Amino acid sequence: MALAAALRVPARMLLRAGARLPGAALGLTERGDGARRFGSQRVLVEPDAGAGVAVMRLNNPPVNTLSLEFLTELVISLEKLENDKSFRGVILTSDRPGVFSAGLDLTEMCGRSPAHYAEYWKAVQELWLRLYQSSLVVVAAINGACPAGGCLIALTSDHRVLADNPKYSIGLNETLLGIVAPFWFKDTLINTIGHRAAERALQLGLLFPPAQALQVGIVDQVVPEEQVQSMALSAIAQWLAIPDHARQLTKAMMRKATASRLITHRDEDVQNFVSFVSRDSIQKSLQLYLERLKQKKG
Amino acid sequence: MALAAALRVPARMLLRAGARLPGAALGLTERGDGARRFGSQRVLVEPDAGAGVAVMRLNNPPVNTLSLEFLTELVISLEKLENDKSFRGVILTSDRPGVFSAGLDLTEMCGRSPAHYAEYWKAVQELWLRLYQSSLVVVAAINGACPAGGCLIALTSDHRVLADNPKYSIGLNETLLGIVAPFWFKDTLINTIGHRAAERALQLGLLFPPAQALQVGIVDQVVPEEQVQSMALSAIAQWLAIPDHARQLTKAMMRKATASRLITHRDEDVQNFVSFVSRDSIQKSLQLYLERLKQKKG
Amino acid sequence: MALAAALRVPARMLLRAGARLPGAALGLTERGDGARRFGSQRVLVEPDAGAGVAVMRLNNPPVNTLSLEFLTELVISLEKLENDKSFRGVILTSDRPGVFSAGLDLTEMCGRSPAHYAEYWKAVQELWLRLYQSSLVVVAAINGACPAGGCLIALTSDHRVLADNPKYSIGLNETLLGIVAPFWFKDTLINTIGHRAAERALQLGLLFPPAQALQVGIVDQVVPEEQVQSMALSAIAQWLAIPDHARQLTKAMMRKATASRLITHRDEDVQNFVSFVSRDSIQKSLQLYLERLKQKKG
Repeated sequence: MALAAALRVPARMLLRAGARLPGAALGLTERGDGARRFGSQRVLVEPDAGAGVAVMRLNNPPVNTLSLEFLTELVISLEKLENDKSFRGVILTSDRPGVFSAGLDLTEMCGRSPAHYAEYWKAVQELWLRLYQSSLVVVAAINGACPAGGCLIALTSDHRVLADNPKYSIGLNETLLGIVAPFWFKDTLINTIGHRAAERALQLGLLFPPAQALQVGIVDQVVPEEQVQSMALSAIAQWLAIPDHARQLTKAMMRKATASRLITHRDEDVQNFVSFVSRDSIQKSLQLYLERLKQKKG
Repeated sequence: MALAAALRVPARMLLRAGARLPGAALGLTERGDGARRFGSQRVLVEPDAGAGVAVMRLNNPPVNTLSLEFLTELVISLEKLENDKSFRGVILTSDRPGVFSAGLDLTEMCGRSPAHYAEYWKAVQELWLRLYQSSLVVVAAINGACPAGGCLIALTSDHRVLADNPKYSIGLNETLLGIVAPFWFKDTLINTIGHRAAERALQLGLLFPPAQALQVGIVDQVVPEEQVQSMALSAIAQWLAIPDHARQLTKAMMRKATASRLITHRDEDVQNFVSFVSRDSIQKSLQLYLERLKQKKG
Repeated sequence: MALAAALRVPARMLLRAGARLPGAALGLTERGDGARRFGSQRVLVEPDAGAGVAVMRLNNPPVNTLSLEFLTELVISLEKLENDKSFRGVILTSDRPGVFSAGLDLTEMCGRSPAHYAEYWKAVQELWLRLYQSSLVVVAAINGACPAGGCLIALTSDHRVLADNPKYSIGLNETLLGIVAPFWFKDTLINTIGHRAAERALQLGLLFPPAQALQVGIVDQVVPEEQVQSMALSAIAQWLAIPDHARQLTKAMMRKATASRLITHRDEDVQNFVSFVSRDSIQKSLQLYLERLKQKKG
């Protein structure tokens, strides 16, 4: 639910999905690096089976908003990697300039049917459940702004590397938009930065710039922007040095209680979301917000 | 249950409730600032409806001990503010020199009936429940020593500003007096400084001076003494920039599990307190302690 | 289950139980300090009843591996101290050079009967339960490498002092050996260093050298090697300044939930261990490992 306002991304970027933004021209066929690639157009997967690692590039222009379609492709791509024995780890990064992911897609929550809202929310849950419980080592190479749902993806990783650019802040800033992060966003944040820091960050909707992000522990490393991917590769090598079976069982043990809470309350959580987003007041403010974005674009 | 010994407040101060201490002369009518004021004599409420904030000054001479009457007035004052739509935040501070609050009132626990002990403990629970779950933004402007029950009040706040004076230490120092903080004091401390630091602080009855208090995270800011209130006002402005509804729901989500534990075990907790405090050994040591204080005074 | 590889202790040390290593000559009768001593040969207890403190020296050559016999002696020695009213605290330290404890004993898990595995695991549980819930103040004076089961012992203490020697690292490094720490090891670590640091440390099997150990909070103090015991004595004096009853009740309150989890699932946890260690694949890799150690020795 991260919006342009929260992101400090120019509002026009949000709705010009087809526009020729810098970097938007980068397509599958234009890469000359000869790497074998698979995945959908929105999720570019660069496998390096020798190293046992795949780089998954998020590419849903303009700002990697988590649309229903994009969520589905992310889950399918991840599932493919998990089922392919030649991969033990994945690096998540953005193929869009300046943004890791802008978070949830407001257009999926506005002017649709309750059935659509339910379907959308289940897809958000599904991505979190799959990433948070992935048997792969997951490293986030955060090379852009990382609010709300983008931050959630980063928080599910085993290791987070953030580019040292003051524009690239990270956090669950839902309250800034008048909305509330669900309990499993909250649980993931508490597990990462502790109860007090999470309470403060969630209430104030804090977006941490790199130095603060490192200090509070929402990321593990801050590195020069051009080194994000190489440092992510170095980090994942450390994790891959551990026998898979022992690491996977340990990860599952650490995360089981948190994941189980959502699994147990999954339907209830969907219903809460549907009834919240169906409220007239919420629909009106979402419509207003989206219209303002269009006007700015115009 | 904080006593003079733990506080390093001269013992004579504790029992000279009517004495003319510096600052004791400050009454409601003597203030020349023209602010509209309400609240009881012990709880001075300075509303600034324009800013949506009230400053609540604790004024139960000599050291803001939490007597039954004082607890009741605090809860009523808070309830009034919460029910008044013109207020969105409250700053808690002391009107007594050198002490934020000395904590629970030993005279309420000594030589009284079991019914009185039960009534007293319910009032302590009530203050905690109301403060910890307040819909208002609560900021503690800690301008004096802050042991035991005083620290508990501070811990329920959303933000804590401590005056940089080496005499103003803060902590749950119950073990120093041979008593044990109840589980909800413990839970509030764990939520604030984490499990290990809480375990150490509670067992050793640590009172943290300002620099250590900031380092361990039991306060959020340490500022020069004369700036405590202005910095509290700056801090609350940051919290009030967030839409109330989203902030309140987020706060409730963060604190629900901890509050529910007391709500569920409230009667049991009262009975534990009554049976503990009714023991001959505890009564004797409380009487001895209070007599020593009187002798020092004499 | 810490092995020589993880410890960076020369492999030959692990199996030369009777060898004359430096320091191995230190026997009970050779000490000229005249202190009254009791305990078994493997657990040397130096009581200082005047101070209310006993120093318990671990002495199971060569590297204080936690054999079934050693575990049993540790529990009995601790029980004796707890039942002796003249003692209020205990300092745990090593009498073996360079190693606090190498952790669990692989020979107890290899080529034995399921009944033996069950008996062994119950003894490990018993040591943890007794140490973690001890009514005594327990201070670990960590004067050597402290992996796996050795680290678990340290984590049950109320205060940890580590000698500042780069060879003396501390951590739960089970994954390095392809195995998984049980949930109560994990819970003890989370309580000490928090969820995120524990998740990282457990998955990566991190052994923290002194400076890092202090920073992450897995120890409370790092001091020059020759001062470990004197600093442990200073630390325990601070804890003994607190009235026993209040400190013990507070400690019990802090640790009850974690201890109860194992108590409730104790049989299940034994069965999990027995079925895990009885697997052909685990038996084969343990045999291989032990044979390699013998060859290195040869």
